[in-house]
Amino acid sequence: MQPSRFEFDAATALSRLADADASTGRSRFAGEILPGWDIGGNANGGYVLAVAARAMQETSGRRDPITVTAHYLAPTVAGPVDVSIEVVKAGKRLSTMTGSMVQQGREVLRVLASFGDLSAADDGPALHANGAPPDLPSFSACPARAALNGDVDVAIADRLELGLHPDDAGFQGGQKSDRGVMRGYFGFADGRPVDTLALLLAADAFPPAVFNLDVPRGWVPTIELTVQVRAVPAPGLLRCSFETRFVQGGYLDEEGELWDSTGRLVAQSRQLALLARA
Amino acid sequence: MQPSRFEFDAATALSRLADADASTGRSRFAGEILPGWDIGGNANGGYVLAVAARAMQETSGRRDPITVTAHYLAPTVAGPVDVSIEVVKAGKRLSTMTGSMVQQGREVLRVLASFGDLSAADDGPALHANGAPPDLPSFSACPARAALNGDVDVAIADRLELGLHPDDAGFQGGQKSDRGVMRGYFGFADGRPVDTLALLLAADAFPPAVFNLDVPRGWVPTIELTVQVRAVPAPGLLRCSFETRFVQGGYLDEEGELWDSTGRLVAQSRQLALLARA
Repeated sequence: MQPSRFEFDAATALSRLADADASTGRSRFAGEILPGWDIGGNANGGYVLAVAARAMQETSGRRDPITVTAHYLAPTVAGPVDVSIEVVKAGKRLSTMTGSMVQQGREVLRVLASFGDLSAADDGPALHANGAPPDLPSFSACPARAALNGDVDVAIADRLELGLHPDDAGFQGGQKSDRGVMRGYFGFADGRPVDTLALLLAADAFPPAVFNLDVPRGWVPTIELTVQVRAVPAPGLLRCSFETRFVQGGYLDEEGELWDSTGRLVAQSRQLALLARA
Repeated sequence: MQPSRFEFDAATALSRLADADASTGRSRFAGEILPGWDIGGNANGGYVLAVAARAMQETSGRRDPITVTAHYLAPTVAGPVDVSIEVVKAGKRLSTMTGSMVQQGREVLRVLASFGDLSAADDGPALHANGAPPDLPSFSACPARAALNGDVDVAIADRLELGLHPDDAGFQGGQKSDRGVMRGYFGFADGRPVDTLALLLAADAFPPAVFNLDVPRGWVPTIELTVQVRAVPAPGLLRCSFETRFVQGGYLDEEGELWDSTGRLVAQSRQLALLARA
């Protein structure tokens, strides 16, 4: 791996282990979940997914994530992890893989993903787009994601440039918007460019949109997160929009759209999460 | 397996094989992809997914699919298939599994899914719903999905009660709506109730919404399909709505909402597919 001066690269760094499982066709990597990317001690789900996806990227020859689905099996905390990747199909257009992350002998994450090459696709225009980036005021007019949520330390907020739309940020002071929407800018605090790997983090880095609805507030554990990457982001901050549309039966969805600074859609996401218990 | 007088049950029937892979914790099933559920000889993707999901259902003790992601690796045709299921985590709330379908020695489908119990959840009201079923005229006023698309035999149309919204059905006569939308009713032609397993079929049974856009028409191979099941459907036809919002870089999305006859959201879906080549 290349050394990097950026925090996100250090936090997703992996050592490839010798072909311990050559008979199974699995690649194995050792990594470390770093402190500082967590919320109250639990590592952010997008960050954890990015670590697993980086192992897939290394396995597939530096391709881009195209569509990535993660099922979260247990909370992940700071400390060593073991990531094993199985190549399901190494195709010309797409490499399909599964990934498994184990921490302290327990599987915490299972991933199914296809990787490919988006850079060539970037030159073509969109043939159809029914949607547009969220209308945000200037970054300086957008409140930062608070580093405290009640008495919970949102450490990841310090790693990111997260500017929330003023209409959606009031929940941080106790004023919910009563719309299940969370919009804002995304970037890294240390200026690291947002590449396709970082889109996986961005898809889960905002406060849950459900915080703006009149339901019990608390930890919102993600069961499953799927991110479809639609283009390589241009330099600059992303404009992101997340919406929880349906809260029923103890579950909620959150759908995201991530747009780059040129107004191009770069990713769509949807997650299914558990409603916090009252 | 129970004998059933319904086509969909026969088409998804499986024989559990003896614990051939007891050492790996995998369950193995033999199934058969039946003719009549195909489009031009390729089995419908929702049908193929339902076969794999039924093996997961058998493995998990008849639980409901909660969130299911399939990556399509190769076309599936009529004939025998082998389905193997690995239990990733057997939890109290959710059973997480992977599934692999192999046909003629080639893996055609890989699935990652979590199953659970939705029937208890059905009693609770929705706490928040931003959305409503599509406004459809009566079923009799909705044109059926045509059993021919150009010169391609859409055999699956004969298995289903698919009534398309008149504003979205004109493509069948060469008049595209220029909106990437496909709405209509879904049920089985033989009156089989639509259960949570059938929602996986319903999520991929309509003509592609992109057929209503001005892009080259042809086979739209699904790369990845994710279905989140949100409730057990009440008896009666589903009202469904699908939209392709972004066509760029050679890929397109299609997002679905499936509602039951009481106006309750029963599933959300999204797929990433390849744009047909001109």
